[in-house]
Amino acid sequence: MSKIPVIVDCDPGHDDMMALVIACCSPELDVKLVTTVAGNKPLELVTRNALNVMHYIGADHIPLAEGCDRPIVRPKDHVIPKLAEFRRHTDSIENGAHGASGLDGFTFPENNPKKPIGIRAVEAMANVLRESEQKVTIIPLGPLTNVALLLRCYPHLISKIEKISLMGGSSEFVFTRPFMEFNTFVDPEATKIVFESGVPIIMYGYDVTYTVLYDQSVIDRIASHDNQTSYMVSQLLKAFMYRHNGAFKWLGLTDTCPIHDACAVAGVVDPSLITQSRYLHVDIETGGDFLNGATVCDYANTTHLKPNVQVVYRMDNERFFDLMERCSAGGK
Amino acid sequence: MSKIPVIVDCDPGHDDMMALVIACCSPELDVKLVTTVAGNKPLELVTRNALNVMHYIGADHIPLAEGCDRPIVRPKDHVIPKLAEFRRHTDSIENGAHGASGLDGFTFPENNPKKPIGIRAVEAMANVLRESEQKVTIIPLGPLTNVALLLRCYPHLISKIEKISLMGGSSEFVFTRPFMEFNTFVDPEATKIVFESGVPIIMYGYDVTYTVLYDQSVIDRIASHDNQTSYMVSQLLKAFMYRHNGAFKWLGLTDTCPIHDACAVAGVVDPSLITQSRYLHVDIETGGDFLNGATVCDYANTTHLKPNVQVVYRMDNERFFDLMERCSAGGK
Amino acid sequence: MSKIPVIVDCDPGHDDMMALVIACCSPELDVKLVTTVAGNKPLELVTRNALNVMHYIGADHIPLAEGCDRPIVRPKDHVIPKLAEFRRHTDSIENGAHGASGLDGFTFPENNPKKPIGIRAVEAMANVLRESEQKVTIIPLGPLTNVALLLRCYPHLISKIEKISLMGGSSEFVFTRPFMEFNTFVDPEATKIVFESGVPIIMYGYDVTYTVLYDQSVIDRIASHDNQTSYMVSQLLKAFMYRHNGAFKWLGLTDTCPIHDACAVAGVVDPSLITQSRYLHVDIETGGDFLNGATVCDYANTTHLKPNVQVVYRMDNERFFDLMERCSAGGK
Amino acid sequence: MSKIPVIVDCDPGHDDMMALVIACCSPELDVKLVTTVAGNKPLELVTRNALNVMHYIGADHIPLAEGCDRPIVRPKDHVIPKLAEFRRHTDSIENGAHGASGLDGFTFPENNPKKPIGIRAVEAMANVLRESEQKVTIIPLGPLTNVALLLRCYPHLISKIEKISLMGGSSEFVFTRPFMEFNTFVDPEATKIVFESGVPIIMYGYDVTYTVLYDQSVIDRIASHDNQTSYMVSQLLKAFMYRHNGAFKWLGLTDTCPIHDACAVAGVVDPSLITQSRYLHVDIETGGDFLNGATVCDYANTTHLKPNVQVVYRMDNERFFDLMERCSAGGK
Repeated sequence: MSKIPVIVDCDPGHDDMMALVIACCSPELDVKLVTTVAGNKPLELVTRNALNVMHYIGADHIPLAEGCDRPIVRPKDHVIPKLAEFRRHTDSIENGAHGASGLDGFTFPENNPKKPIGIRAVEAMANVLRESEQKVTIIPLGPLTNVALLLRCYPHLISKIEKISLMGGSSEFVFTRPFMEFNTFVDPEATKIVFESGVPIIMYGYDVTYTVLYDQSVIDRIASHDNQTSYMVSQLLKAFMYRHNGAFKWLGLTDTCPIHDACAVAGVVDPSLITQSRYLHVDIETGGDFLNGATVCDYANTTHLKPNVQVVYRMDNERFFDLMERCSAGGK
Repeated sequence: MSKIPVIVDCDPGHDDMMALVIACCSPELDVKLVTTVAGNKPLELVTRNALNVMHYIGADHIPLAEGCDRPIVRPKDHVIPKLAEFRRHTDSIENGAHGASGLDGFTFPENNPKKPIGIRAVEAMANVLRESEQKVTIIPLGPLTNVALLLRCYPHLISKIEKISLMGGSSEFVFTRPFMEFNTFVDPEATKIVFESGVPIIMYGYDVTYTVLYDQSVIDRIASHDNQTSYMVSQLLKAFMYRHNGAFKWLGLTDTCPIHDACAVAGVVDPSLITQSRYLHVDIETGGDFLNGATVCDYANTTHLKPNVQVVYRMDNERFFDLMERCSAGGK
Repeated sequence: MSKIPVIVDCDPGHDDMMALVIACCSPELDVKLVTTVAGNKPLELVTRNALNVMHYIGADHIPLAEGCDRPIVRPKDHVIPKLAEFRRHTDSIENGAHGASGLDGFTFPENNPKKPIGIRAVEAMANVLRESEQKVTIIPLGPLTNVALLLRCYPHLISKIEKISLMGGSSEFVFTRPFMEFNTFVDPEATKIVFESGVPIIMYGYDVTYTVLYDQSVIDRIASHDNQTSYMVSQLLKAFMYRHNGAFKWLGLTDTCPIHDACAVAGVVDPSLITQSRYLHVDIETGGDFLNGATVCDYANTTHLKPNVQVVYRMDNERFFDLMERCSAGGK
Repeated sequence: MSKIPVIVDCDPGHDDMMALVIACCSPELDVKLVTTVAGNKPLELVTRNALNVMHYIGADHIPLAEGCDRPIVRPKDHVIPKLAEFRRHTDSIENGAHGASGLDGFTFPENNPKKPIGIRAVEAMANVLRESEQKVTIIPLGPLTNVALLLRCYPHLISKIEKISLMGGSSEFVFTRPFMEFNTFVDPEATKIVFESGVPIIMYGYDVTYTVLYDQSVIDRIASHDNQTSYMVSQLLKAFMYRHNGAFKWLGLTDTCPIHDACAVAGVVDPSLITQSRYLHVDIETGGDFLNGATVCDYANTTHLKPNVQVVYRMDNERFFDLMERCSAGGK
């Protein structure tokens, strides 16, 4: 069986790390390209983190291209203050769930030889689409800036996208003020462009990511493997559980933790992991004072508009954790 | 103990009917004024319905003043098409949950002698506030148009308002597309004015109204009383359960039904009915493409702003139904 | 010939002072009511100024009612910072064109016996409309808050309004950043309500008010009269020319000065003063980042919508100054 | 003296035609690339027109890359209905000023061998910037979609842009409803991105383009030359005067006509053609109901923000027409 060609667009982040491990170490996927985008941290940091993870797990052969350093329309510093606002309730945890580096909790070797390629993300994505015989699946794990620009700059290549499996948004689970998820909130216009593109979209929002909670037993299973990837993953899962639950104390999570971005990759590796989902028409709010980026899901079908999104609600947790373990064990 | 002076602002509607019965027939309240506002139906219909209910239950002595026939800023026909949009999924039930009359399911006597007073609602409300020695509680059960205009036209009388106990909005329970409740949606600017007024606000949104569901046993208890008010109430509760559940079929309710507006009155009669609530900072979205009128509840206290709303989450259902029964039995 | 019944809604201001003199001292008008609104200065100051002017010119018999202290939807302090922004380029003139008092340049006697009536502006306006046999002309000279609330609170009285002759807005003359005139800018939603009301509107925007520039000869003519009103007017015209031209130095005016609000009254006294005007469809911008309150004039008739506004472009300056002189001479 | 390297981004259009002739036939410029964007007409038509003009005037050696077929955020059909709205007042002239083809009034030879290159506009622009030793001037003559995407996709190449000399916007001259110029109106978000980019911007808005009006004598001078370019130009200038003045009849132009886009090229060829301009801070409205894309010029310096745009007000008309003639004569 042929591998599934994918592009992973990320802003690591602990959960992006897990997503990269699954993507790069799963034999089912053929990762053609990894791209980065400003989101969890500024572009420079997320790019460094992605390069570190990729080199450490043995994915040097996969090219990484740097993408956008800011949202399309919103001001550049819209990212950081909003992050700050999200993080302001972080009393016990400095620098939020991901820490100052964006990937606190593991020290990667210095002098990483892996570097970004000399082509920017949007153009690099277009090259992958153009050169691929098969349609390519795009897996965005951060703000949708790069993907939206791809759709606008290369309209003739849209037909080469198989689907967009993204982590972002929220349907019924309304997480925080604003009512919405971070990725869609950072670049609402990009989100609107992607959701209105006509490309099949699978959305892993907070609805599902907060139902896939790993615990110490998952960490232990991964740690039981002898390779350096499993070690790194277990260390970072442990750090993230501590940091995330401290940063979002009011959620009341203690011994469990979500691993958001990994969901959107796992569902591409094995769509049977999706145990509950609905096809809905989803609009994106972009004109509001508070709720920009909200994924307005018409789950009563009030609009009578055609569904444009498969909203995932539940995944098979056990098999999901198996996949995390298997891919970690498969890394360097 | 002295009675609590209140003004009831409504747009009947079956649930407004129940609210009026509780307000007018409860010995704890002194209803100084009933006002009407375009909402569930155009002003003419809701005024007729309010007059019919008041006369039938023996509340002729309470003055009724007609209020606004449209939202403050949004176009006049913003009300009806949006209602239509809300109702479009009403396949089996014509004219939505409240029917063509706004109060389908009971035939009131013709030639109702009760008429509106010659003063418009906002001025009439101001007169009540001015003339009352005690502070007055306002209980809005429809769009907040009248109340918002009162706050703006008579800023020196705001201090005479004890609190605003309103049915509207939603916190965690996101009902339909748009994400929000009908009353706050119809006049978002009025909602913003009221929520930012500094007057203490108690919000009975969908969070709580969909946890207070009556069933046939409640109807039977009310029907067991011999007075005409109980008969009318039981007939309309029965009709509403049928119509509401048909209109909002996708909610999956069959043998139970909410009675929204009644909650906001009941909590004034007996605050101990509130068994769970939170004091939150709530902003109102008014600039959006989809989510205008949304009550943006900062339940993670991300904003660090002072709470302006007591958001009610749970009520003592049994004692609530007791109140419904007692007040119905207390009517004419 | 019967007098024209009018209500003057103002926020004095030097130009409002001139408008009040024309309105109250012109034998053609029957001023039924003067109302005040927060605008050029906070409500307290503009009310004091209006009372001072009215008492000084002998208009004690005309009731004055206090109106709104803030815009309908925009935040209360939206008025003052925006004023501040308008005034920031005022290097040589402290406190802007109108000075700290709002009417700098003349000292009115202390202990003014004239007080506001005990009824608020919106209700007082409704009373005038209700009790008048003739239709009444409303002349708004400040933000349109009071008038908009009147239209919403008393929809059944709209038919009693003859027309609304207002100072505000701009068509081709784009004055400053934002592109618009102060009155419409302070309360954009009120402006929208008034302009969409269906009541005939005559708009005296910057297009016309900057073509009606008085000079020293006009001041001298007025000063030549022996009554105290003429003295006060001449003093304030002199002060305003100095202050306005200092405050708006970049306009390059030195020996001439506009007297904005007076235009909207003068055109009611004598419509033949209007020598050029166009009937246009005018929309009001309310959703923008910069241009809220802009009067979007469809002077190419692109919309094919029915004109709702008579936009005045030119007035007979000489006869306008004659009217200023005549009314000043006619005062106490 | 070395030639000035430029990229011309256009949507021909008669005035784009003139701009292309000046750019491609002027010895002062080195046109590295021509790109097209949906604007005056859909992408397919404007691309065909640009190819036709370039081949006819002997500019086959200059590469042409196809760009965006729609605005970044606004709906795709936002272009055409708005065009329709602009054109609705076109009673005597079918299909507006540019006609059905976008370049009515001259028949180009069939089977044009010139084709777009295989690279899309944004990537092609980036290649020019990357490969050029000198900084490159970008001359956008249509909606700013391509240029905005370039800035976002290739942030590291922004420093390679010398300046952006664009036709679009308006300062004091307010043309039609909406208050603004077509190019900035079609893609307001792109306009915002470009104006906030920090790149030096020279804006040729309606303020200046309606002061540079050619007449029959200019056409005659151009027609007097013997080459096919001059013939084509004179034919199209004649057609455009007829069509433009018929389409915008209310402007009252009869024997003269603007040639908008040509201004933005001419000023690059010879900056001394600019006889009056001001450096202003210009914001772009994007949130409005009516005025999106408006170039909000702070000409009173109310904001105290640093100027980001050189707004051109007047050009040396005679020398401008000389340039038109000279470049036409210099073509094939």
